[in-house]
Amino acid sequence: MSLPLEVPARQLIVQKFGGSSVADAAGIKRVAQRVVDTQRAGHEVVVVVSAMGDTTDELLDLSSQITDQAPAREMDMLLSAGERISMALLAMAINKLGAKARSFTGSQAGMITDGIHGKARIIDVDPHRVRTALDKGAVAIVAGFQGVSRESHDITTLGRGGSDTTAVALAAALDADVCEIYTDVDGVYTADPRVVPTAKKIDRISSEEMLELAASGAKILHLRCVEYARRFGVPLHVRSSFSQHEGTWVLPSPDDKITISEGVALEQPIISGVAHDRSEAKVTVVGVPDIPGKAAAIFQVIAKAHANVDMIVQNISTFGRGKTDISFTLPIVEGADALEALKAAQGEIGFEDIEYNAEIGKLSLIGAGMRSNPGVSATFFQALSDAGININMISTSEIRISVVTRADLLDAAVRAIHSAFNLDAESEATVYGGTGR
Amino acid sequence: MSLPLEVPARQLIVQKFGGSSVADAAGIKRVAQRVVDTQRAGHEVVVVVSAMGDTTDELLDLSSQITDQAPAREMDMLLSAGERISMALLAMAINKLGAKARSFTGSQAGMITDGIHGKARIIDVDPHRVRTALDKGAVAIVAGFQGVSRESHDITTLGRGGSDTTAVALAAALDADVCEIYTDVDGVYTADPRVVPTAKKIDRISSEEMLELAASGAKILHLRCVEYARRFGVPLHVRSSFSQHEGTWVLPSPDDKITISEGVALEQPIISGVAHDRSEAKVTVVGVPDIPGKAAAIFQVIAKAHANVDMIVQNISTFGRGKTDISFTLPIVEGADALEALKAAQGEIGFEDIEYNAEIGKLSLIGAGMRSNPGVSATFFQALSDAGININMISTSEIRISVVTRADLLDAAVRAIHSAFNLDAESEATVYGGTGR
Repeated sequence: MSLPLEVPARQLIVQKFGGSSVADAAGIKRVAQRVVDTQRAGHEVVVVVSAMGDTTDELLDLSSQITDQAPAREMDMLLSAGERISMALLAMAINKLGAKARSFTGSQAGMITDGIHGKARIIDVDPHRVRTALDKGAVAIVAGFQGVSRESHDITTLGRGGSDTTAVALAAALDADVCEIYTDVDGVYTADPRVVPTAKKIDRISSEEMLELAASGAKILHLRCVEYARRFGVPLHVRSSFSQHEGTWVLPSPDDKITISEGVALEQPIISGVAHDRSEAKVTVVGVPDIPGKAAAIFQVIAKAHANVDMIVQNISTFGRGKTDISFTLPIVEGADALEALKAAQGEIGFEDIEYNAEIGKLSLIGAGMRSNPGVSATFFQALSDAGININMISTSEIRISVVTRADLLDAAVRAIHSAFNLDAESEATVYGGTGR
Repeated sequence: MSLPLEVPARQLIVQKFGGSSVADAAGIKRVAQRVVDTQRAGHEVVVVVSAMGDTTDELLDLSSQITDQAPAREMDMLLSAGERISMALLAMAINKLGAKARSFTGSQAGMITDGIHGKARIIDVDPHRVRTALDKGAVAIVAGFQGVSRESHDITTLGRGGSDTTAVALAAALDADVCEIYTDVDGVYTADPRVVPTAKKIDRISSEEMLELAASGAKILHLRCVEYARRFGVPLHVRSSFSQHEGTWVLPSPDDKITISEGVALEQPIISGVAHDRSEAKVTVVGVPDIPGKAAAIFQVIAKAHANVDMIVQNISTFGRGKTDISFTLPIVEGADALEALKAAQGEIGFEDIEYNAEIGKLSLIGAGMRSNPGVSATFFQALSDAGININMISTSEIRISVVTRADLLDAAVRAIHSAFNLDAESEATVYGGTGR
């Protein structure tokens, strides 16, 4: 009798699969095989799944046949049926492979949220039923995207990127070793390969940089998921469900980064990548009285409409009128509600007009230590100028420069910046598409 | 200012709609209109819905693409998604008509069950969230067919007839004035109009007689629903969702019957109707040692396999061998499990063989006071004899005579009995079909 030379460490691994991975029976069986392989390698596995490929669209179509103003509570009840279907089927498929599995709704898995239907925030996670299932040797399958309101006990959904957030929140609550986000590309790229065919896969990136990439429109990971992972120190591994290759590790702090891949951080280029985003619109509130409190009043109105403001620019007070213009960007889907709320408050705030433009694009360059390298912004603006691209808005952070341009110039801008910072690979990447939940 | 001459009594009404009533958006809108009309007439309304027409079949098809041995827990998780969809859509449709509605899963509505997946029994109902919704002026919509296990907190389903049972259980727990079961016929008939075109609609029937009709194969109301209604004194009103006509009232006790329709009970014919059933098979356990305890052993084995035995006949011990044959009927769908369980126990019980016959039909004549009218059984057997129909098994109760015949002779037997007891109407009835859940 001999013992194996190396006993692999037993890990708790959370694996998240999106709707395109479980789009049909064949996809569900493939996911089941990967889950069972992971368990048989000696690990504890928690799986978070989205609804099957078209399910959400089919349910939305049904509701649109009934009404164009569905109550948000009932829309959440409707949409949360989707994960119920995919997770039960996945449990059956795992069972068929001879392993044990138990599926849990968001409520059963202890995903406690606030009561804002359609975009609820997780406020607590109590995964004791998940932990019990693992203790009994079962794979635990959890419905992504959904939870239960602490106050009303109603079913809630987390909005876009919700399944990623479910996975990270569970990983944090269970003290998991890693949260694997499966997608249909090999990892995070220096730019969207559909726009920049020479984009390169990033092997390791800090949470901070990934946060800026996600906030700037990189669709592979949702902002909330990265924020959550960073706050709770959860290592993310973004990888392909179609291969066994290592993907991109998103590591919560520089210390962890050095521990896991010694010295690599020091060798990293300053620039991580280029992100772009077409999902936002620009709102300009014209002729705001230039007295204290008016900007606060505007953004309180926007916050009450549950719209997420991104960039904000206050233009110089013009014409000596004692008035100013305030511009900001927000998701196009939230534009109508925000405009309505603003118009209702026009008398109270006293502005003159509102302009709305959805034909914009946002480009962001992300890299650690960018501010300490004075050449970066010079190179950045020179590259855009050389490409003949006019800039509408500018916003910067410690590790990011973002600009707003005309939507039809965005792709050219991304390519110009990617080249200017020498991010181009020698061969072309495979093209990816994002997943909704 | 004038007061209305008659203030209609405010009632609490539970309305149950099956899958065919909510098969598409148009059906859901029609149901919503009826619900809102009832509420606007001054009543409190609780609606119980099944899954939309084809949803259950589609979900079963998906699971069969994954495995032919789905774990029962996961099958319940899968199937319970169906009601979530229909009830959320119905809530939206009611909202669209300007009324308030809140949908609740079985678990949220407090349908507490045992842990037998696929055919769970309700053991407690705690509808406080439903009551609160009513108090706030909303229509409460509850998912039929599903509950939550008290022990494991897992989602359960109630099996066939489950939505009717949900409706009656809620009506009992809320002390509702009536539980309306909507279907696609006008009520309960003296026989299946597809077999006996001259069958008549019954205006009023006692719970006891309806129980025997349902137990004997009348598909319009499920046995469990009638049992529950009888035990808790819930008046049922079986009626068409396509008309405003009064349907059939199923009244919990003779006292209620006389209260509600004075004198009518006395005028009712002794015979309520003829039911038939093709869903059962006959099992004969051959060569059972004729000593005490063997029948008990056999039916313990059957009970452990969760099969529902209907008729039981022990034949006369033959050939002086000290052995006997025991025959019983049970649902065909439970036949395989029961046979397997019996075969496993063959050595222990010591019987010789098992015979199985699914090509049988059961006919039942139901009527109050039947036993006290000695002419009934004579007329019954004479009619079958005149029609040339041979009898396999006989079983009787206070208000029922049932016989098992060859399946291919069943329709002729039903017509012969219906005529012999003068149940034929002068005109032909409209034909109906049953609903699954």
